[in-house]
Amino acid sequence: MKRVDGRENTEMRPVKITRGINKHAEGSVLIEVGDTKVICTATVEDRLPNWRKLEGKGWVTAEYSMLPRSTGQRSPRDSVRGRPNGRTLEIQRLIGRALRSVTDMEALGEYNITLDCDVIQADGGTRTASITGAFVALADAMQWMIDNGLIPQMPLRDFVAATSVGILQGEIIMDLCYTEDSAAEVDMNIVMTGSDRFVEIQGTGEEASFSREETDQLLNLARDGIKQLINYQKQVLGPVADSIGK
Amino acid sequence: MKRVDGRENTEMRPVKITRGINKHAEGSVLIEVGDTKVICTATVEDRLPNWRKLEGKGWVTAEYSMLPRSTGQRSPRDSVRGRPNGRTLEIQRLIGRALRSVTDMEALGEYNITLDCDVIQADGGTRTASITGAFVALADAMQWMIDNGLIPQMPLRDFVAATSVGILQGEIIMDLCYTEDSAAEVDMNIVMTGSDRFVEIQGTGEEASFSREETDQLLNLARDGIKQLINYQKQVLGPVADSIGK
Amino acid sequence: MKRVDGRENTEMRPVKITRGINKHAEGSVLIEVGDTKVICTATVEDRLPNWRKLEGKGWVTAEYSMLPRSTGQRSPRDSVRGRPNGRTLEIQRLIGRALRSVTDMEALGEYNITLDCDVIQADGGTRTASITGAFVALADAMQWMIDNGLIPQMPLRDFVAATSVGILQGEIIMDLCYTEDSAAEVDMNIVMTGSDRFVEIQGTGEEASFSREETDQLLNLARDGIKQLINYQKQVLGPVADSIGK
Amino acid sequence: MKRVDGRENTEMRPVKITRGINKHAEGSVLIEVGDTKVICTATVEDRLPNWRKLEGKGWVTAEYSMLPRSTGQRSPRDSVRGRPNGRTLEIQRLIGRALRSVTDMEALGEYNITLDCDVIQADGGTRTASITGAFVALADAMQWMIDNGLIPQMPLRDFVAATSVGILQGEIIMDLCYTEDSAAEVDMNIVMTGSDRFVEIQGTGEEASFSREETDQLLNLARDGIKQLINYQKQVLGPVADSIGK
Amino acid sequence: MKRVDGRENTEMRPVKITRGINKHAEGSVLIEVGDTKVICTATVEDRLPNWRKLEGKGWVTAEYSMLPRSTGQRSPRDSVRGRPNGRTLEIQRLIGRALRSVTDMEALGEYNITLDCDVIQADGGTRTASITGAFVALADAMQWMIDNGLIPQMPLRDFVAATSVGILQGEIIMDLCYTEDSAAEVDMNIVMTGSDRFVEIQGTGEEASFSREETDQLLNLARDGIKQLINYQKQVLGPVADSIGK
Amino acid sequence: MKRVDGRENTEMRPVKITRGINKHAEGSVLIEVGDTKVICTATVEDRLPNWRKLEGKGWVTAEYSMLPRSTGQRSPRDSVRGRPNGRTLEIQRLIGRALRSVTDMEALGEYNITLDCDVIQADGGTRTASITGAFVALADAMQWMIDNGLIPQMPLRDFVAATSVGILQGEIIMDLCYTEDSAAEVDMNIVMTGSDRFVEIQGTGEEASFSREETDQLLNLARDGIKQLINYQKQVLGPVADSIGK
Repeated sequence: MKRVDGRENTEMRPVKITRGINKHAEGSVLIEVGDTKVICTATVEDRLPNWRKLEGKGWVTAEYSMLPRSTGQRSPRDSVRGRPNGRTLEIQRLIGRALRSVTDMEALGEYNITLDCDVIQADGGTRTASITGAFVALADAMQWMIDNGLIPQMPLRDFVAATSVGILQGEIIMDLCYTEDSAAEVDMNIVMTGSDRFVEIQGTGEEASFSREETDQLLNLARDGIKQLINYQKQVLGPVADSIGK
Repeated sequence: MKRVDGRENTEMRPVKITRGINKHAEGSVLIEVGDTKVICTATVEDRLPNWRKLEGKGWVTAEYSMLPRSTGQRSPRDSVRGRPNGRTLEIQRLIGRALRSVTDMEALGEYNITLDCDVIQADGGTRTASITGAFVALADAMQWMIDNGLIPQMPLRDFVAATSVGILQGEIIMDLCYTEDSAAEVDMNIVMTGSDRFVEIQGTGEEASFSREETDQLLNLARDGIKQLINYQKQVLGPVADSIGK
Repeated sequence: MKRVDGRENTEMRPVKITRGINKHAEGSVLIEVGDTKVICTATVEDRLPNWRKLEGKGWVTAEYSMLPRSTGQRSPRDSVRGRPNGRTLEIQRLIGRALRSVTDMEALGEYNITLDCDVIQADGGTRTASITGAFVALADAMQWMIDNGLIPQMPLRDFVAATSVGILQGEIIMDLCYTEDSAAEVDMNIVMTGSDRFVEIQGTGEEASFSREETDQLLNLARDGIKQLINYQKQVLGPVADSIGK
Repeated sequence: MKRVDGRENTEMRPVKITRGINKHAEGSVLIEVGDTKVICTATVEDRLPNWRKLEGKGWVTAEYSMLPRSTGQRSPRDSVRGRPNGRTLEIQRLIGRALRSVTDMEALGEYNITLDCDVIQADGGTRTASITGAFVALADAMQWMIDNGLIPQMPLRDFVAATSVGILQGEIIMDLCYTEDSAAEVDMNIVMTGSDRFVEIQGTGEEASFSREETDQLLNLARDGIKQLINYQKQVLGPVADSIGK
Repeated sequence: MKRVDGRENTEMRPVKITRGINKHAEGSVLIEVGDTKVICTATVEDRLPNWRKLEGKGWVTAEYSMLPRSTGQRSPRDSVRGRPNGRTLEIQRLIGRALRSVTDMEALGEYNITLDCDVIQADGGTRTASITGAFVALADAMQWMIDNGLIPQMPLRDFVAATSVGILQGEIIMDLCYTEDSAAEVDMNIVMTGSDRFVEIQGTGEEASFSREETDQLLNLARDGIKQLINYQKQVLGPVADSIGK
Repeated sequence: MKRVDGRENTEMRPVKITRGINKHAEGSVLIEVGDTKVICTATVEDRLPNWRKLEGKGWVTAEYSMLPRSTGQRSPRDSVRGRPNGRTLEIQRLIGRALRSVTDMEALGEYNITLDCDVIQADGGTRTASITGAFVALADAMQWMIDNGLIPQMPLRDFVAATSVGILQGEIIMDLCYTEDSAAEVDMNIVMTGSDRFVEIQGTGEEASFSREETDQLLNLARDGIKQLINYQKQVLGPVADSIGK
């Protein structure tokens, strides 16, 4: 099989993270994974959700949305539909869980950080790009909190990044673009930490199923991709990266 | 570690499926997995969603809801909140995908089958119980279609069932009840077919992560549990089971 | 006229109330009136509605819903429609009023009790079955409050139950099933106490009207039916019944 | 007991119906019952609800609303709350049923008539005033249909009007104003036709109950009041009244 | 060009303001501008919006709505649609801004005044009639506050009124009725104070544009109309007018 | 007065329009006006709104939204609030009207073009930047239609652009940034065509008013600014500009 954009089966698309793209937000990045482009902003507030108050701990949450014409066909806005759709809610819950898995909530203190992931252009893998980019925005926002004396040290215990892997025409492939994703028999989104541990495995075969052996191959391939992503996060974050996991 | 209800780590709770519990529905069951009780009804309609029309194929979809007092604390109804919440939407999408993975949509013809999974009493594992029970209601509804001359043969290619596995206090355990689920480091919901293939793997560590080795053990344990469930589905369905996968 | 299920005009369908069917709720019953089946749970909370606070009195309220396939044709869920429909709101207001009419709010103290009436299977008379069943769940929840030291004595001043009566093909009949209800000229729902007093009379002739004489006959018949229901409530509640109205 | 506005127990407040108060509507009235003022407009459209199509019959429906400051305290608009509240829905269903009970749907033909009842100022009895006034607007709209050649003859089989009666401090009283309604033990809304037959009886004792004997007295008093109202409707409608029930 | 109702191009329709038309509201008027009729009520509350609290200042806000059959074709209620539509929100923001422009918020003190403008019958110019009428209701409500000792003096710094002007078939005309408004090339709504100053200029050419010279003519004409309106407000308010702007 | 960013009173902020920033959309730009950044995409569809069908004409509409953290304080998403707020609806109606004023709907044919204006970063003037940018995206989408044979010629009759002017501390200033806008006594948004004609004048003094002389100065200043903007649009559009207004 020849991939639609000429990549090797195990090859990831080019990834680029640009920091500081929003002058208001405490942390912000534009992440580009091939033609997928997501703006991630981190907002620090001292307003916790009610159920979290008075525990001396913080909270990290995420919201996700696609601009109406980020896709090939224009989709109606959620605000016009009157509610976020199921897919949106599922994805933003995933992003939130991923980021919380590496956050030390006591070290964060009684602050809430909201990660807004807005897809400007979509070409597959928007949820995994959101996680990988939002982590960098989160680190920047936490560094801003340190620099402004809100907290004494970095509340991140580890790095976290995500990629998709899948099975297309029987072959195991890395980082599916939209065309591949639409045709894939199996789609698996994997979130892993810098310590090579899983935070989330979401493997789905809508009209297909997959064997245990294929599962093993998918998990191995995802690990390779996420290692590359975390190395790139470290490079992009520069000195901020040094305090993570310390 | 001693489990809260005295089970072995690898032991599933007692499962009971009662068919034909609703006189209106084309298929209906009450599934009980320990203290978790779910009513699953299958409704056959000749109204397809718009995007599915004129393709000569059918569709299978699911809705999921919990009665307000199915849980220890009463939860407000979705209809009062004005919309289904994120967890509800995520679960009903999962149930729908699981059932579609074993359905031959061409053999189903231009019919829509809706599986309503309403949790009467919850004690952990409501989504996996819903899948396991809804499959039986679906088979019954399809048998009803055959008996009433709507379709000539069973459109199910295989069985499908689901269970949860997890890591609690560092130990790998089967079929978590609510108390275990709340305290677990890792929670994994697995959907598999009668051919021992995965349809869905959803592993999550909200405030924790898990290794590749633990993943292997979790997958193995889930496979054992799902085998038991599918054997029980066959026994419960009796003669209807014989036409599945033929 | 021969009734569709062979009953006499003055005959009620078989009624069965099963207590304690939900392990979480402070009170719970399954009530079956013929093929109509309703789960009623009572939830005790120390959160009063805002307007009721600081008065030293409690509150009793009800919510009502039908499972989508409780009826012959599947109905969309209220949560999908985005709001409870008019019929739902009208019925749950009726149930709440009926139960409040026999509750001593000062004796109840600053507690809120919510009765959830969820129709599992519908065959006419779901609102009256809900009232009759919810009363038993309410009594059980209040007994639980006494047993747990929240209140010193039973805050129920009397029993309350409900039935429907109507005019079909010119004949006065008791306890209409769905087929009868759809064809009836007049439908009347009556709520009465154990002291033979009315709490609610709701008589409606959508495309018909009814005379004063017919009204008298309908009220008499309803009283006979409700007497039977309250006797059965007493029998079902056993010792708990003894403290009601004392 | 001395009534708050000095009336006899059996005395109705002054009633005034002004026709033709809206230049757009096919029928329109302002009805004043004491200080209660309701604008009722009738809109004739040839768009039937979907379920009513192709039956050769018409439909009559009602909507009810209160201006935010029609009451002593300003209430938020339903449109701000995002949905009509339960009381609103219950009342507009009642008005619709009342008007349909005297309409010959076949004679109406495939037209839909919507009665909008908007309360300009409220002082108790808004739902019964709405019914009494809406009937006149409906008759005018039907006369307009005849005059414009849409239908050959008046599709009203009878008159219909409504009043409230109740028990206050143990006394049976006619046509409760707001102050009385708030304090009444029992409130009963009665809808009757010109032939002295009931269309609707809605008697409620929220924190009280009422005997069979009291019921009889309430029904008798309501009949007297409604007779007066229907006589006044006839007088107000003038020649249009003559074709009703013919 | 001959205007549809025979007016001169510079002639306003007859205007009539009737005060005190609602017994509950602190201020209320019915304003009639030709066949456009709007009920404006002013409600005084000591509940400020959250963001306005503890500033020692008051707030004035407006809500606007049209009865469903105030127009030639019946429109669905906003509450049925589930939300106010864009036009409604735009208009009520305009009314609120206009009234706030002449209110001394410190002199008003920590009170909120809500102006409800409900269109009973529409024939063009409902938003400008609402402003002109609501000002009188506001003044009456403030006088009520003085009379009841809530505030010591009138918090209105000036009068405010509004009219529409436009270009129809190339001619500049005053106070467009609905027929004219529908056909106009340019529609301009102007709000001015008693000191001949602009509060709001909203000029729109949906399918047309307009020159600077035409703009000048439109502004001049509007000024003439608003002067007439403010003179009439003074006459209608009588002694209350004397304290405005003092 | 010294302006916050050092500009002359009559000086506009730097404006930059980047075309083709979205690979899916038929037309797309990023417009930057100082720190205000808006993505405008144009979507061509052959689905007209119902009321526009079968007229042989097209339609142009706009939607507007701000990313939650485009502003100094994060704002909740409209989809979470359940509906677009009043300001959003008002702005998108304005953008739509502005673009329609220069579109020849017959030349456009039976196509609908939706302009999505999504504010990535806000610093005042987002609505006028949206209009100026959306015009370029619209022209590109129409050129795409010509290039793809959907229409024979450019359906734009003229250019259109917009800017804000205002009065701050008594001085007339051009193109207000957020800090200026918040403090301004008067804010005026002006939309003009390439022929120096007004499409929209929206002048507002929330807590202030303005004289006729000031109005003249504001209109003059706006005209100067819009001339600059339209010259820049021509330069940016290059050859595409040549067919506009032909």
